[in-house]
Amino acid sequence: MLRTDNFKSILDRYKFIFFDAFGVLKNYNGLVPGVEQTFAYMESQGKEYYIVTNDASRSPVALAESFHRVGLHAISHDRIISSGMLAKEYIDLKVNDGIVAYLGTLNSAHYIDSSGLHTLPVSAINNSNIDLVNALVLLDDEGFNWFDDLNKAVNILRKRTIPAIVANTDHTYPLTGNNEVSIAIGGIASMIESIVGKRFIRFGKPDSQMFMFAYDLIRDRMPVSKKEILMVGDTLHTDIMGGNKFGLDTMLVLSGNTLPDDAETRIKSTGIVPTYICNTAVIE
Amino acid sequence: MLRTDNFKSILDRYKFIFFDAFGVLKNYNGLVPGVEQTFAYMESQGKEYYIVTNDASRSPVALAESFHRVGLHAISHDRIISSGMLAKEYIDLKVNDGIVAYLGTLNSAHYIDSSGLHTLPVSAINNSNIDLVNALVLLDDEGFNWFDDLNKAVNILRKRTIPAIVANTDHTYPLTGNNEVSIAIGGIASMIESIVGKRFIRFGKPDSQMFMFAYDLIRDRMPVSKKEILMVGDTLHTDIMGGNKFGLDTMLVLSGNTLPDDAETRIKSTGIVPTYICNTAVIE
Amino acid sequence: MLRTDNFKSILDRYKFIFFDAFGVLKNYNGLVPGVEQTFAYMESQGKEYYIVTNDASRSPVALAESFHRVGLHAISHDRIISSGMLAKEYIDLKVNDGIVAYLGTLNSAHYIDSSGLHTLPVSAINNSNIDLVNALVLLDDEGFNWFDDLNKAVNILRKRTIPAIVANTDHTYPLTGNNEVSIAIGGIASMIESIVGKRFIRFGKPDSQMFMFAYDLIRDRMPVSKKEILMVGDTLHTDIMGGNKFGLDTMLVLSGNTLPDDAETRIKSTGIVPTYICNTAVIE
Amino acid sequence: MLRTDNFKSILDRYKFIFFDAFGVLKNYNGLVPGVEQTFAYMESQGKEYYIVTNDASRSPVALAESFHRVGLHAISHDRIISSGMLAKEYIDLKVNDGIVAYLGTLNSAHYIDSSGLHTLPVSAINNSNIDLVNALVLLDDEGFNWFDDLNKAVNILRKRTIPAIVANTDHTYPLTGNNEVSIAIGGIASMIESIVGKRFIRFGKPDSQMFMFAYDLIRDRMPVSKKEILMVGDTLHTDIMGGNKFGLDTMLVLSGNTLPDDAETRIKSTGIVPTYICNTAVIE
Repeated sequence: MLRTDNFKSILDRYKFIFFDAFGVLKNYNGLVPGVEQTFAYMESQGKEYYIVTNDASRSPVALAESFHRVGLHAISHDRIISSGMLAKEYIDLKVNDGIVAYLGTLNSAHYIDSSGLHTLPVSAINNSNIDLVNALVLLDDEGFNWFDDLNKAVNILRKRTIPAIVANTDHTYPLTGNNEVSIAIGGIASMIESIVGKRFIRFGKPDSQMFMFAYDLIRDRMPVSKKEILMVGDTLHTDIMGGNKFGLDTMLVLSGNTLPDDAETRIKSTGIVPTYICNTAVIE
Repeated sequence: MLRTDNFKSILDRYKFIFFDAFGVLKNYNGLVPGVEQTFAYMESQGKEYYIVTNDASRSPVALAESFHRVGLHAISHDRIISSGMLAKEYIDLKVNDGIVAYLGTLNSAHYIDSSGLHTLPVSAINNSNIDLVNALVLLDDEGFNWFDDLNKAVNILRKRTIPAIVANTDHTYPLTGNNEVSIAIGGIASMIESIVGKRFIRFGKPDSQMFMFAYDLIRDRMPVSKKEILMVGDTLHTDIMGGNKFGLDTMLVLSGNTLPDDAETRIKSTGIVPTYICNTAVIE
Repeated sequence: MLRTDNFKSILDRYKFIFFDAFGVLKNYNGLVPGVEQTFAYMESQGKEYYIVTNDASRSPVALAESFHRVGLHAISHDRIISSGMLAKEYIDLKVNDGIVAYLGTLNSAHYIDSSGLHTLPVSAINNSNIDLVNALVLLDDEGFNWFDDLNKAVNILRKRTIPAIVANTDHTYPLTGNNEVSIAIGGIASMIESIVGKRFIRFGKPDSQMFMFAYDLIRDRMPVSKKEILMVGDTLHTDIMGGNKFGLDTMLVLSGNTLPDDAETRIKSTGIVPTYICNTAVIE
Repeated sequence: MLRTDNFKSILDRYKFIFFDAFGVLKNYNGLVPGVEQTFAYMESQGKEYYIVTNDASRSPVALAESFHRVGLHAISHDRIISSGMLAKEYIDLKVNDGIVAYLGTLNSAHYIDSSGLHTLPVSAINNSNIDLVNALVLLDDEGFNWFDDLNKAVNILRKRTIPAIVANTDHTYPLTGNNEVSIAIGGIASMIESIVGKRFIRFGKPDSQMFMFAYDLIRDRMPVSKKEILMVGDTLHTDIMGGNKFGLDTMLVLSGNTLPDDAETRIKSTGIVPTYICNTAVIE
């Protein structure tokens, strides 16, 4: 039987809490029941939070609204760090002109839109404009025809020596409560990367840039030490691996990807060790 | 400038010739011009041939007909060894009952059909029959909806501990003369294998089983030494790698995947060294 | 609790039995107690056996003697198929002259010696003879200085475009009863392959060539169907994977690499499914 | 013929320059001739530099001294960011007590020493102290017996569920002017990681943390935009990949790992595109 820690007593030791979103705060049924009290408690204690999420499907404003819709009104868009934000920053800094071709929904593309660049779906690339394509961005697994557009993406990368950016490193995401999953754009990206033999630029946990982004937002306002921050997540190889590597204490919760029966085996087999294990991010 | 050997003078040294099909005998335009004279010459000299091809899209009979249609009438179906034949043999030997779910066209599925088994497309698997699925076979990249059925295949393999068979190890195939490619079922298979974390069973070059199958067909009729056999192919990591490993002399032809300008660099960078290099499998 | 099958009742169904050696017939303590009775029973019933082993450390004659020394006198050298035999056949067929450089013991090198070739340890290669090196063979993890000779092997492969042959695909082998392992030459090979970026030629289970070699030895003497053969091994990804792929029924025994507590989890997580599971290859 | 840019005219566009060390500022012969004038020019123009290097063999102070010894006196230790610094920070933050076992030289270990922790070479770990080992750090490829201590490291990680930290991600480093290389600790780390099946924590380019460390040192003193920084390196998949991903403009120099004849092919085959290409980091 896995020994778990008491969430509240751990929470009390830290000033800043970084949360993963899916599997921690919400799941396919909506909000994790009781998690709104965690946010009320944090506010009452002067603790601050950031949401650090591998999600490039829409803007932080839209992501915040998705929390509000399911009843977590405490979430403010300026406390959400998404892998899409890093992809957007990359494009702003490094792609100066021409076309940014993308795989994903219209929503995901709107977010990375930038002045001076044309953002076009891969399906709209053809012989007349392929020479203007200066980047390929993989944003979301929906919004395009897989057969047509994955094949097209492969051929764009064979013809053009341009950066390919993956805005979400996850290989799958949970689909329903039935233990089913859906292939995420990160899994598709690995297939295309292996087929074209080129190195893609990936944004998302466990990469340190995600954590650095949140850390910097705190530092802009007040002094902070990494010892004061706790990362809470449900996935060992993204949330816990990334938090550990960045030097944070980490908490694995068992409300998402890692099931109570598997946690111990998975920690041992991966060597990814959280500082704490709790059932949920809910104060009981 | 790459030094190439004279095809006819090499051919004269061997009694048995194994040919890859695509890129050697035919391409997207039809027959490689002049290749029918190679077969006439071999017949006049009492040389024997086998076609050793990574193809699970249809039966050897149908594959032979596809040669006849483009004008190569010399090809007999009993001289064709396809990766589909190995997949079919595996299913015949190892899957005793229940459903064989497949990704591919109806043609590809007909070929592996076997008495006592139901062959059903992945799209026809649901909660009422998933417990009867005893194997998943990946046959062809066409004939199904990628988004729906690749996601379904992942979830079938998460629920059922069954063998997954890949009947074609190629990751891409040439699409047109425009240097474009299409993602092959072998590339899709690698993505799904990595996502579900299970080991798939792969049939196709460079695996020795392909060559052994042809070698056995000769041995059933007459004594043969591996020294008497030449493998002719256009792809280093399947045709040449596989032929070398099986102990055969190998010839790289430059009429398909490996371009004259790239051949030397690729041989050096992969360490896969053909015994000979010829422009084409055509007697000049 | 894992349900296991009765070894004798399974044995009775097959005419030919292929055995892995280490973890099935012997381990670090010597013979698996009682396994000699299995061989006596097989002889009394007219069943035939072959030992199919990933071992390139010495000749089949020397391997047979190692069984005799620990008390299994029934083993005849002509019933042993080792990955070293395949490496030797490759060199005989494909390397015509010059130097074969090797990593391994003197014993392992003696076995692959062939007329017309100089077999030299990697440590003996220098500027005066490197241009004569026509193959590099990785035979054993002992018999050389890792720091000096692994670095030298990397540089030989950077300078010479030659085949690199790995005569044992195992990444580790059990060292003592204390659950400790030793890095095998197959693990070292993967590191060097990745560093030089070239494709190595590997001999050993799960590759079909190992099984084909044994199968052919039977066919040379009598008719045989794959349905009459059982492969018995302790390792899922070599013995069971290889046997399955070759079309044989397979038995996992729990006396070696796969522990009784792990068997079910590992079968599920790898998708490699043995036909049977028995505690040992011993008739109880 | 590869078109290269003029180093000085590029330098003039940026306020901050990040340099890789080996292959850019020095090589096996000592200083890259003329590079001291680059530093004199930068000082005269009020430009600032940082050295961002995958090196965990010693402290920044010792690294600075190694520049002084070969004649580059301008280098100050507080301008050197090494992957060893990140490993040290990780240990300081995340390993609270017990033993830190290491592979590397005494020098490399001294640097990561921290109060409250015992730093012991892997060779000194035995049954009496293995339960106290709370981290394994891979620092350098020298200073230990590869056969004994790599095998021991594998068994430590099989017995203890602890973080394994790799303080240098390079797989090889150039050995002499003769185009020879030496296997680096990052290459060894990949072999051990694959053998034990656990996830290691890696510090070094192309990871963003290296760049963030230097970026933060600037920000602590003055405002800075990523647009004002140029990363100069000789290796595509570390220096250029990492600089690009962090959002910096990047310059490939041809004085080290990437040879003038290979640069174009490698950029095309990897898809890693520098903003500029210059022969050397020397003002001509």
